[in-house]
Amino acid sequence: MKKQYVLGLDMGGTNSVLGVVDKEGKVVARASIKTQQYPEINDYVDALYHEAEQLVAPLGGFAAIRGIGAGVPNGNYYTGMIDGAMNLPWPHVPFAKLMSDRFGIPCTITNDANAAAMGEMIYGAAKGMKNFIMITLGTGVGSGIVIDGKVVYGHDGFAGELGHTIAVRGENARQCNCGRKGCLETYCSATGVARTAKEIVSSSTSATSLRSLDIDHITSYDVFKAAEAGDEVAKQIFDFTGTLLGQSLADFIAFSAPEAIFLFGGLTKSGHWIMEPIVKAMNENVLSLWQNKVKVQFSALNEADAAVLGASALAWE
Amino acid sequence: MKKQYVLGLDMGGTNSVLGVVDKEGKVVARASIKTQQYPEINDYVDALYHEAEQLVAPLGGFAAIRGIGAGVPNGNYYTGMIDGAMNLPWPHVPFAKLMSDRFGIPCTITNDANAAAMGEMIYGAAKGMKNFIMITLGTGVGSGIVIDGKVVYGHDGFAGELGHTIAVRGENARQCNCGRKGCLETYCSATGVARTAKEIVSSSTSATSLRSLDIDHITSYDVFKAAEAGDEVAKQIFDFTGTLLGQSLADFIAFSAPEAIFLFGGLTKSGHWIMEPIVKAMNENVLSLWQNKVKVQFSALNEADAAVLGASALAWE
Repeated sequence: MKKQYVLGLDMGGTNSVLGVVDKEGKVVARASIKTQQYPEINDYVDALYHEAEQLVAPLGGFAAIRGIGAGVPNGNYYTGMIDGAMNLPWPHVPFAKLMSDRFGIPCTITNDANAAAMGEMIYGAAKGMKNFIMITLGTGVGSGIVIDGKVVYGHDGFAGELGHTIAVRGENARQCNCGRKGCLETYCSATGVARTAKEIVSSSTSATSLRSLDIDHITSYDVFKAAEAGDEVAKQIFDFTGTLLGQSLADFIAFSAPEAIFLFGGLTKSGHWIMEPIVKAMNENVLSLWQNKVKVQFSALNEADAAVLGASALAWE
Repeated sequence: MKKQYVLGLDMGGTNSVLGVVDKEGKVVARASIKTQQYPEINDYVDALYHEAEQLVAPLGGFAAIRGIGAGVPNGNYYTGMIDGAMNLPWPHVPFAKLMSDRFGIPCTITNDANAAAMGEMIYGAAKGMKNFIMITLGTGVGSGIVIDGKVVYGHDGFAGELGHTIAVRGENARQCNCGRKGCLETYCSATGVARTAKEIVSSSTSATSLRSLDIDHITSYDVFKAAEAGDEVAKQIFDFTGTLLGQSLADFIAFSAPEAIFLFGGLTKSGHWIMEPIVKAMNENVLSLWQNKVKVQFSALNEADAAVLGASALAWE
């Protein structure tokens, strides 16, 4: 039996999606389980095994599977450990080993943003690029950095925490879950947009449709809908967000001189409302040699597939 | 004749040092010329050729030389061009090609900070390290980033401009020669220390020995001598400088998760006065997973040899 498929796993705090991927990057079968339903890691791995068994049955069973690649929160490529993932039932586990042992197939892991970067490089808009940065704009801000065709893992496997570079310094900067102040993700994640909306709406008297919503539950999607309807305050919220992100991107460029920066995740649904201020601020703030030279694009992969595809790419290595 | 030597060139705005380097990294012969004495690039290359001819004569002539590596201001590894080096008589020239043609030996170039990083990796304190960052603290602030054992050049060859990441945002930030405001090098270079000294001395009435100097010509070395003599204002100047640099290093760590950061150049002569606030601010500002884990060290190479050695390493590739 030729081993012509791999398994890709996208583990999220809520759902875990498992896909069987062929050499052309097609997800030929998929299943999903609820991550939080398994307080014991061995039960979770077992559940994945049973789902996989059914997926691979028509392909000739596990003999057709060359490897498993997993994108997991706080996953460390070097050690195979999940390390400090506070939104999982098992924040510290040797996940790659548990999977390899249960499946009898080698398993490699990385974090979700790195998996998205690999997916983009192999199957998406970064095809053929050797130097780019993937920024994921979801509940937090993550990043996967590709230099010379390879994802950067650094000395300890944790490189690429650009969501925790400091966007705003000083005592008045926003508190981050990481314990510090002013991290990029406190401003430029979907959650950051909601915080900005709350701040701007409650501190001004400008007319805005956002005022009719429960101020503690405004979402970035509410702000998007308001901007689409012509709401000036909503546009101001995206301008503020995009300007801060663009300023930070300008600094990231000085580090690795990427050909392009890709944006991925929930906040990208805000389209040009977020993209325009990002590109403007990036070009206004970057060293002149890079002005108007670095592409900024939304990911070409659909969110449902990107992480599974990216993770699966690890298994071909 | 075995080709067992290489030539390393360290081109500065004032002096250009040429060294013959053996496989063990020993500079077996060296010469230097005055860069500004040659308004024509061909005359400069000729002068280097004649110096080299004398250096290699005892070794059997150019037949013993395998290649030439040069660390030059704004040198581009990919294109072999000097590109926008405003402190040279020839800011834009195809330097690698001119050298290769004149010497009949392949020549590879990079910028000075990358050359220092290579020197440190092959002959200095970074021996055996695969992930580190070299920060050069001279007239400006430069950087050479090593990831996975290789210097990062990026898409266009200009990666690693960390001196031009923004350390201080806003209208009141210092003006940089690059046309923007708040760049790290306006605060943390030797020149930046002099600017800080001028600002602090002229805006306060504190007793300080620096007040007896010509305020427009205080140097970082003056500040060092004052700190050594117990001057509190001098210590405050280093605290300010080191704190800003440490904050920036914390962000650089989030990018590439280096094992160590090396500091090189004139300002490192200030020893613990600059090192202590750097390390303190870095650890106070970095994401907790890296706290007290990333080494900060002064370069182990003497300044006279580091760039020649680093540049020469290019020629072995």
